[in-house]
Amino acid sequence: MMSLESVHSGSLEPAIQEIAAAISAYDGPSGVYQLKGFASLVMKQALKDPVFRADLFRLVDVFPSLEGPEQITAHVLEYLDPRAPKWMAASQSLASKLGIGRSVLTSLTRNNIIEMANQFILGTELDEIARKVGQMAQQGYLTTVDLLGEKIITYPESDRYIKRLTDIHERLATSAPFLAINTKLTGPKISISVKPSALTPHYGPLQRRVAIDEVIERITPLLKSAQDAGSLIFLDMEHYDTYELTLEIFNRLVNDPNFADLQLGLVLQAYLRRHVTELKSLLARLEGYESDNPRLWIRLVKGAYWDTEFAQASSESHTPPVFTDKAESDISYEESVKLLLDNHRKVHPAFGSHNLRSLSFAIAYARSLGLTPDDYEIQMLFGMAEPMSSALLAQGQSVRIYTPVGELLPGMSYLVRRLLENTSNSSFVRARFGGKQSIARLVAPPKLTRESKPPTGYPAGYKHEPTTEFHHQHEMRLQQEAIENVATTLNTSNKIRLSIGRPLAESGVWSTSLNPANPTQILAQIEEANEEQVEAAVSAALAAQPEWSSASLPERATILRKAAAYLRSHRSEINAIEIMEAGKPWLEADNDIGEAIDFLEYYAIWAERLDTERLDSPAGETNQLRYRSRGVTLVIPPWNFPLAIPMGMTAAALVMGNSVILKPAEQTPITASYIVRAFEHAGLPAGALCLVPGRGETVGAKLVRHPQISTIAFTGSRAVGLDIIEAASHVAPGQTSLKRVVAEMGGKNAIVVDMDADLDQAVPGVIYSAFGFAGQKCSACSRVIVHRQIFDAFVDRLALATSTLIVGDPRDPAIQVGPVVDDAAFAKITRMIEEGKKGSELLEQGTLPDSDGYYIPPTVFVNPDRQSPLYREEIFGPVLTVERADDLDDAIWRANDTIYALTQGVFSRSAQAIARVANAARAGNFYVNRGITGAVPGRHPFGGFGNSGVGFKAGGPSYLIQFADQQVISENLLRQGFSPDISE
Amino acid sequence: MMSLESVHSGSLEPAIQEIAAAISAYDGPSGVYQLKGFASLVMKQALKDPVFRADLFRLVDVFPSLEGPEQITAHVLEYLDPRAPKWMAASQSLASKLGIGRSVLTSLTRNNIIEMANQFILGTELDEIARKVGQMAQQGYLTTVDLLGEKIITYPESDRYIKRLTDIHERLATSAPFLAINTKLTGPKISISVKPSALTPHYGPLQRRVAIDEVIERITPLLKSAQDAGSLIFLDMEHYDTYELTLEIFNRLVNDPNFADLQLGLVLQAYLRRHVTELKSLLARLEGYESDNPRLWIRLVKGAYWDTEFAQASSESHTPPVFTDKAESDISYEESVKLLLDNHRKVHPAFGSHNLRSLSFAIAYARSLGLTPDDYEIQMLFGMAEPMSSALLAQGQSVRIYTPVGELLPGMSYLVRRLLENTSNSSFVRARFGGKQSIARLVAPPKLTRESKPPTGYPAGYKHEPTTEFHHQHEMRLQQEAIENVATTLNTSNKIRLSIGRPLAESGVWSTSLNPANPTQILAQIEEANEEQVEAAVSAALAAQPEWSSASLPERATILRKAAAYLRSHRSEINAIEIMEAGKPWLEADNDIGEAIDFLEYYAIWAERLDTERLDSPAGETNQLRYRSRGVTLVIPPWNFPLAIPMGMTAAALVMGNSVILKPAEQTPITASYIVRAFEHAGLPAGALCLVPGRGETVGAKLVRHPQISTIAFTGSRAVGLDIIEAASHVAPGQTSLKRVVAEMGGKNAIVVDMDADLDQAVPGVIYSAFGFAGQKCSACSRVIVHRQIFDAFVDRLALATSTLIVGDPRDPAIQVGPVVDDAAFAKITRMIEEGKKGSELLEQGTLPDSDGYYIPPTVFVNPDRQSPLYREEIFGPVLTVERADDLDDAIWRANDTIYALTQGVFSRSAQAIARVANAARAGNFYVNRGITGAVPGRHPFGGFGNSGVGFKAGGPSYLIQFADQQVISENLLRQGFSPDISE
Repeated sequence: MMSLESVHSGSLEPAIQEIAAAISAYDGPSGVYQLKGFASLVMKQALKDPVFRADLFRLVDVFPSLEGPEQITAHVLEYLDPRAPKWMAASQSLASKLGIGRSVLTSLTRNNIIEMANQFILGTELDEIARKVGQMAQQGYLTTVDLLGEKIITYPESDRYIKRLTDIHERLATSAPFLAINTKLTGPKISISVKPSALTPHYGPLQRRVAIDEVIERITPLLKSAQDAGSLIFLDMEHYDTYELTLEIFNRLVNDPNFADLQLGLVLQAYLRRHVTELKSLLARLEGYESDNPRLWIRLVKGAYWDTEFAQASSESHTPPVFTDKAESDISYEESVKLLLDNHRKVHPAFGSHNLRSLSFAIAYARSLGLTPDDYEIQMLFGMAEPMSSALLAQGQSVRIYTPVGELLPGMSYLVRRLLENTSNSSFVRARFGGKQSIARLVAPPKLTRESKPPTGYPAGYKHEPTTEFHHQHEMRLQQEAIENVATTLNTSNKIRLSIGRPLAESGVWSTSLNPANPTQILAQIEEANEEQVEAAVSAALAAQPEWSSASLPERATILRKAAAYLRSHRSEINAIEIMEAGKPWLEADNDIGEAIDFLEYYAIWAERLDTERLDSPAGETNQLRYRSRGVTLVIPPWNFPLAIPMGMTAAALVMGNSVILKPAEQTPITASYIVRAFEHAGLPAGALCLVPGRGETVGAKLVRHPQISTIAFTGSRAVGLDIIEAASHVAPGQTSLKRVVAEMGGKNAIVVDMDADLDQAVPGVIYSAFGFAGQKCSACSRVIVHRQIFDAFVDRLALATSTLIVGDPRDPAIQVGPVVDDAAFAKITRMIEEGKKGSELLEQGTLPDSDGYYIPPTVFVNPDRQSPLYREEIFGPVLTVERADDLDDAIWRANDTIYALTQGVFSRSAQAIARVANAARAGNFYVNRGITGAVPGRHPFGGFGNSGVGFKAGGPSYLIQFADQQVISENLLRQGFSPDISE
Repeated sequence: MMSLESVHSGSLEPAIQEIAAAISAYDGPSGVYQLKGFASLVMKQALKDPVFRADLFRLVDVFPSLEGPEQITAHVLEYLDPRAPKWMAASQSLASKLGIGRSVLTSLTRNNIIEMANQFILGTELDEIARKVGQMAQQGYLTTVDLLGEKIITYPESDRYIKRLTDIHERLATSAPFLAINTKLTGPKISISVKPSALTPHYGPLQRRVAIDEVIERITPLLKSAQDAGSLIFLDMEHYDTYELTLEIFNRLVNDPNFADLQLGLVLQAYLRRHVTELKSLLARLEGYESDNPRLWIRLVKGAYWDTEFAQASSESHTPPVFTDKAESDISYEESVKLLLDNHRKVHPAFGSHNLRSLSFAIAYARSLGLTPDDYEIQMLFGMAEPMSSALLAQGQSVRIYTPVGELLPGMSYLVRRLLENTSNSSFVRARFGGKQSIARLVAPPKLTRESKPPTGYPAGYKHEPTTEFHHQHEMRLQQEAIENVATTLNTSNKIRLSIGRPLAESGVWSTSLNPANPTQILAQIEEANEEQVEAAVSAALAAQPEWSSASLPERATILRKAAAYLRSHRSEINAIEIMEAGKPWLEADNDIGEAIDFLEYYAIWAERLDTERLDSPAGETNQLRYRSRGVTLVIPPWNFPLAIPMGMTAAALVMGNSVILKPAEQTPITASYIVRAFEHAGLPAGALCLVPGRGETVGAKLVRHPQISTIAFTGSRAVGLDIIEAASHVAPGQTSLKRVVAEMGGKNAIVVDMDADLDQAVPGVIYSAFGFAGQKCSACSRVIVHRQIFDAFVDRLALATSTLIVGDPRDPAIQVGPVVDDAAFAKITRMIEEGKKGSELLEQGTLPDSDGYYIPPTVFVNPDRQSPLYREEIFGPVLTVERADDLDDAIWRANDTIYALTQGVFSRSAQAIARVANAARAGNFYVNRGITGAVPGRHPFGGFGNSGVGFKAGGPSYLIQFADQQVISENLLRQGFSPDISE
């Protein structure tokens, strides 16, 4: 953390105060605070009541998707009713009582929202934009135009965006003589702010290889035209995960001889922890770019994605990339102001802020260096804090207005962010124009508050394992190296033997593990257990019982934590193996290792909690609940989460004191062998974990029926699961324990897309749920049920997004869809697609690489035959059906029309609709406004009911107890009338 | 609570202080504080360290049962090692290092314990007793002799006790001339204190009818002899549950013309809340008994069973009968002093106390009334506070010493109580002679401290339902009336129909419920369901699902609480029905209703807790764990806990939102019908609970296999349980849920009696565990495994205790063993006993009433054939086998040598031995130093593993979740970069 003293000297303070006072002397109404009538009342209420404020902005967000008075009225009532102030409740009550009132309420709402939008969005049409930009120029304001729009997830959307932006530039360039009439404007008259993420549907760190090229290719015509016209192009900085991408694009363009004369700007966010360091590094790289009138620009802002960055970091357990104390951002800003002004001959500084302190500081420091207003710009947002911009202009400052243009619907995201900025408690704009704080207090130097504690997890001490930060290029490099290293070890001489903690003669039978992206490549040979070895394994596991079960729960928890540490230190290596053995794309592999670690840590904590469970104990008596191991647990995992699922089942069984026989999936034995390695490294007694590879039909079936197996943990298909359940119900003579089965079976999971869904969320959510890891997840979405009102819009974007997916060998990090796991899967899925075409309508299929790998194109059917296997059976591949629902009830009915009950989801912006779907959902895991895969232990305890499984949720509070028998020890303490818990 | 002012006037205080000062002037060493050497060091350490003190007294308690240096050394080390002070650790370390040291340690321990015992126990032999009593008389002390002894649980023990007491009296009477030489002694020279509980093995409130007669019969010869000799007989007051019994005996003797000249005393305990009221009532009844030298005596004491009374009340959830603030007892004592002295012409007061304040108060008040020392006595314990008794004697007070005589082993209980009294923090003796407090502070008026909070149960809000206080005679009368009233309603016209919440045509098939104590008596006719009705019931239950499952967990919890209230208000009525329908003795019936209420209250609380279960939720996301009903639950209960078990299973299923089909046990349908009544009264929606009577083989089997039953809760035999488990594993086509089975099956439960067991605990514990409710509990003890060292002693007492049991129609509250439930049970148990005789040795059988009831005598076999059905199979009747174990390991092995794993117990006074048995025990419920039946929900969550059951413990924290499916709802809160849980 920086210290205040390092940022500025106290000697600047009097000048800052003076400048601030001068700006403040210009004291008129501003921005949203100028709103009239009803809108003004609503905004005032929002300032008072944070819950109302949240509801209001959510209403503003959903509003454009609503059709007709009925939907609008319903949403207005739902969002605002319970918290509405009296005057509003009255009007709503009126609305709900009188049918006629609805249209009044509707138009009232619509008008007010449009009024608010017009406050912040300059215009929609080219003519209007050009006219208004001209008017602003006449007033003395420079502008930079930003084109609002939906989230870009397909190529046509990117194409539309750049086309429109180019049109706007063209039109403004044509108007340039008109803009030039204001002679006071010294900077570039025309400026466009470009969002790189809008230039390709692949603007993500792992798609780096694709993304940078596509952005540069798509932006080049605009840049050329701008260079010709002398226009200034800003690259907006967006979410942190693309920070390094945007920096890289800026660097390339700076060094591109084709754009040697281009006025090019980059936006940097002071709220990023790494910002000042990066700024210094950037300035150092610009050695030789000094000029009296530099063509490179830096717009310094605080940053507009704080909530998202914080939530994303929380979700991934990363340290937030943003400062969590507002004052730290302010200090970072001021330090950056100095750096930029000190280097004003390398880059032209532009200070984007509405903070009186920050701007006064910039002006004061500039003056202290003897700079003139021509040496830097102030940038402010259209529609906000106009008195301040007017004052600055009046004082001769160069002021450029960031001017959003575009339509209401796609612009809603922008509008909501602006409304929030205007009313946030920590917002300067609110403090200045909403709250009427004193100037002196407002422009005091930023002061650090006590660092707020990070949100604590539940249970205490549990923290989801951080994902690898592939948005940092060096992490990608390390992973790439791990893949190259590991690849050299995977071949026919890589042999994995049965392992039971004692020497054992070889069975002599070996199977192979293949690379599904390149099936001729053998990664390892695996010993298949024979009958004798199976018996030996059970004996070894039984023999290990006394020692292992006599360890205490905390002692066993420690072993789990050590195993977690092993995985942590071998993460990139295991990632690499999964990428090659299971065909997992990078993120999928990385999440699997993370989940395995999560299971270990979560079960370790819960085991310790079980150790302290209390019973009622009256005076004179102690009662204690204990968990006893059940004996030997058989773990039969699938190949699709080749580390996490077997590790979860194994860790749970072990921590409860059982010994475990792990029969790994036939497709992923190399990954499974790391489970044994991790526990060996952790110091688990020999024999407590036996690895017994072999075929399910032989080795698996024999173990399931073995009388000395007391618990069976299975994850896999329903057919095998039902067979295990039935086999386990038979009790052999003399069998001392009845077998307990914990089985996770299949799913046929649906996502409901309601009429008010945000398609920017819904389409990517469905795409990832259906095609992530080629649909090979039991949680995968295989059916999407769309409200008729948005069916066409949804299907159009879904089809394009499907065709946008990059299919190929997942050793390439840019790959979004890899191969399916083996030839059997390939044949089965191919057959189901072919048969599906007979009764259902094929909408879209992705394109395939030219390869022998087991690639299946992402495939979307619409209007499926609801009795077909395509619709009824679990496919376990990248195949999705889309159907139309008449209304929400119809959608709910369709979603639940399956024997499975695993996952389900809904995209909706109506809390009532969400509750209706959730309450009706026959699904163990129900997801709202997000994808339906990627359950994290402790957050989304996972598992279904119905025909999807028996037992309690993995990664949840009840999972462990399934692997133990409960025992109560009750001791009477009274002896001879005396009890030590009573007497003094 | 009394106020201080009501007890005494301040005007007495100066006299009290003066008297106390005079007594204290005589200031020599006293009692245990006179101990020398090692014993003194040990006692000093005990005063400093309460844990050491507890361990020490437990060692003293167990000591007499130990044989040989090895056992003694082991116990000394175990009890005292971890906490022993340095000087002691050194000697022990020596002892453990040098084999030779053992005998040193052993004799050191033995000598010290004997020294302590001699401090408090006058003597053992008649000659010695007479001689020492004479010596005391010469010193001026009166005495009253108390015969120490083991707990009386058999008739021969009672006979021995009264014989020995009579011998002592006889011997003292013979010595009377010798005693008379001290002319200062004015009161009766010879006195005996009698414990009524030692005069019959049936000294309990429910055995009142038997107990009072037996006590009077057995004490009569002594009383006659005392009357002849002019001796004074005190009836000691013991535990509160026999308070009314002893009062009644005293009243009868007072009014018995045969004893019109007997000097008879009663002991009253001031620590009882009801004491002062009862004393006033007693004094009022003695109108006409006034005399200058009254022959009736009251010894006023504080009370010596505080721990036991408090523990007993906690255990039964009664308000403790004793004051919980020491000062309240002191105030009660002083008020009683006044009452007694005011009535000194009706009763001769004797003030038993070592409290300087209490005694000074008594003397001061007596003087204020102008009484002389002849008008009352001071009584003190032998070996305690001698300086005080000497001082009192010197001041001319009449002092009688309560003088325990007898052997060390049976006297150990008394010794431990005395040691505790000497070292308790609140003890006056300790304060005075151990702690050296100032006299003024010691004799200040008693001052109430803030009432301490009652111990809180777990989970918060849960409290075991109080048992009916049958030790209060009016409660017995009410129950008797209920039996008489209910009896008039039970006959063939009492018809119980199928009940499914909607009208239904009669099946026309009726079965009957009989009284097993009188099998010709039909209590009710019960409709048996036909196939159509079964289908109708399932339909009704399914139809009730939407409404019932949509209620929240707290709403459903409220319904359970209302059902509990119904049972509470119908308790004596349902008790009466169980007594007649199930043949339950009173306490067994009453406990069954209490347990049913407990289940309702406990599950209500847990349901609410489940409603608030938390998941980890990172910023921007909420995750919520919900419990969804599974549909229709089938409940198949047994008849042995005809209300509690079906209520527990039904309540759990209902509170989790399922509807329930209850197929009641064929033997106890009337009791089961109260479950339906209770829930109807509570407002459960119609159809949510269907009562479907019928045979297990037909109705039960059909329901088990019904595809729309999703959960089966069964308690019963292993054979039926295994059939259900297997049937449930089959999945019918289209069946949407896999069936879950929660099954409690049988047991073949053992109790281990270790060599150091307290037989006073072990014999009654085994007797009740084996023969309570005629052994018809799955938790019942059917095997007892006894360490060879105490095998003979145990078996002797066990046989006699068995023959002491009262078998008969449980409508009589004195009955301890009733009939078995029906003719099938009668035939099966009879056959097993007969076959058992072939391979095993019959030790004892109880006697039977002359009746047609299904009575089986309590039966004990020794040295059983371990391969016989008698030893291997669950008998479910009053049959017990006793076997000898070579050592503890052998005992553990024997206890676990069964396929069952339900309950088990150990009697031992070695913590290490207890831990060894407990850790090895294959038993769901393990009990230490108590019986192994009578599990209380929340305290002893109940259920076994192995072949004893599948599922989590009833009345425990994991039970409810078995009746629900877990569902996680995960909502992404981020919209347009804004999340209401993050932003201000």
